[in-house]
Amino acid sequence: MKDIILIGSGNVATHLGIALKRKGFNIVQVWSKHIDNAKILANKLNCKGTSSIKQLRKADLYILAVKDDAINNIISQLKDVTIVHTSGSIGTDVFNHQFSKYGVFYPLQTFNKNLNLDLAEMPICIEANSNKFKHELMTIASQLSKNVINLDSESRRTLHIAAVFACNFSNHMYTISDKILSESNIDFKLLIPLINETVNKLKDNKPSEIQTGPAKRNDKQLIDSHITGIKDKKIKEIYTLISNSIISHNE
Amino acid sequence: MKDIILIGSGNVATHLGIALKRKGFNIVQVWSKHIDNAKILANKLNCKGTSSIKQLRKADLYILAVKDDAINNIISQLKDVTIVHTSGSIGTDVFNHQFSKYGVFYPLQTFNKNLNLDLAEMPICIEANSNKFKHELMTIASQLSKNVINLDSESRRTLHIAAVFACNFSNHMYTISDKILSESNIDFKLLIPLINETVNKLKDNKPSEIQTGPAKRNDKQLIDSHITGIKDKKIKEIYTLISNSIISHNE
Repeated sequence: MKDIILIGSGNVATHLGIALKRKGFNIVQVWSKHIDNAKILANKLNCKGTSSIKQLRKADLYILAVKDDAINNIISQLKDVTIVHTSGSIGTDVFNHQFSKYGVFYPLQTFNKNLNLDLAEMPICIEANSNKFKHELMTIASQLSKNVINLDSESRRTLHIAAVFACNFSNHMYTISDKILSESNIDFKLLIPLINETVNKLKDNKPSEIQTGPAKRNDKQLIDSHITGIKDKKIKEIYTLISNSIISHNE
Repeated sequence: MKDIILIGSGNVATHLGIALKRKGFNIVQVWSKHIDNAKILANKLNCKGTSSIKQLRKADLYILAVKDDAINNIISQLKDVTIVHTSGSIGTDVFNHQFSKYGVFYPLQTFNKNLNLDLAEMPICIEANSNKFKHELMTIASQLSKNVINLDSESRRTLHIAAVFACNFSNHMYTISDKILSESNIDFKLLIPLINETVNKLKDNKPSEIQTGPAKRNDKQLIDSHITGIKDKKIKEIYTLISNSIISHNE
């Protein structure tokens, strides 16, 4: 499995394409709905871009790294290819048994197109319709990451939901924090040691064991004074809901 | 200012006491409401513990590191001392002008009593009722941390609210994530590279710029499928509220 076609030109396609090329894989072609986007990534990977599914060439593996709601439509236009998608939330049933080799190659990471990323620590979750194909996919994944795991569709969906909380939602907590501080001209960077310390503790402790703060202590007076101090109605609501969740978690 | 008395025996008192002793300060005495707790910390600091305010000796500085709602009562029993409290949310008005030197020594950190902590990166926020005393407090703080700042009571309160979001609430997101995963026997540690990556990006980016995930993409279909997939009613509610907040933040 050396020749790979990338369907998609977003964050996942970009990072996977660059990482695979670095490891000696041959990226044959990049497809994107918008030819300009296809060409931007194709240029980085030294290959051709296309926006036509019909013009896709032969390859050992098609990697389908598009938005979840575009997967079905693209699959319906493909025949006789070996294919994986990269989605955390879509099962293998989307392939509808219409290929002889199909599966999932789900990199568990938070991708931004323009940021460099070391993929070595990034877990890659593999699922395939046969043991032989699973083995082939794991061989590829092992060249990108030290952390390759088998995961069926349901577990992958669960992992994806958990990742939304651990990564996307925690980041939104930073965004709210930044918003509150910037209104008082205080630099958010002040909080980075505190954030690092919280995350460092996760190595050796369950997160529930290292919870601190007013809600953990059930300090109702302080919670109320914080809620009064927050001006934005939506942020007030979030403060209240999460504090109550922490309190009831400790009961 | 070499002789210090610690009022309190909790997380903040413990970490500050140990750090100050390491830097050559002389911890004269530890007070706690419960004599056993006073003695545990006093033993670590090679001094005497007491549960009687009346038995407190003379010292260059009293550090009042107790719960917010205990501060008033203790202050009312003290006379003729140089004193700071360590609270993020209580102003200097609590001292009611009854001392000639009073202020705040607020370490911005998430303390767990039993975890070792490098205080050097931890911001310490200083406020004092005179420039001279402020200078003295900053000299002490600078021996513990590279990051000492002046902050008035209102800004400190704002910083504390922001820290609750950035630290306490993000940690609760990890707790929810862990809970979801453990029900499917998936190890939360899988997510640590993802969490580290999120936090690493904060060094060079505003958190709102690095937001990713279904709500950032306004992927309603995926958001709905996640909400359906979550069993716990309270967790469903949190998923919905935070997703909506991310969506409206991007509008």
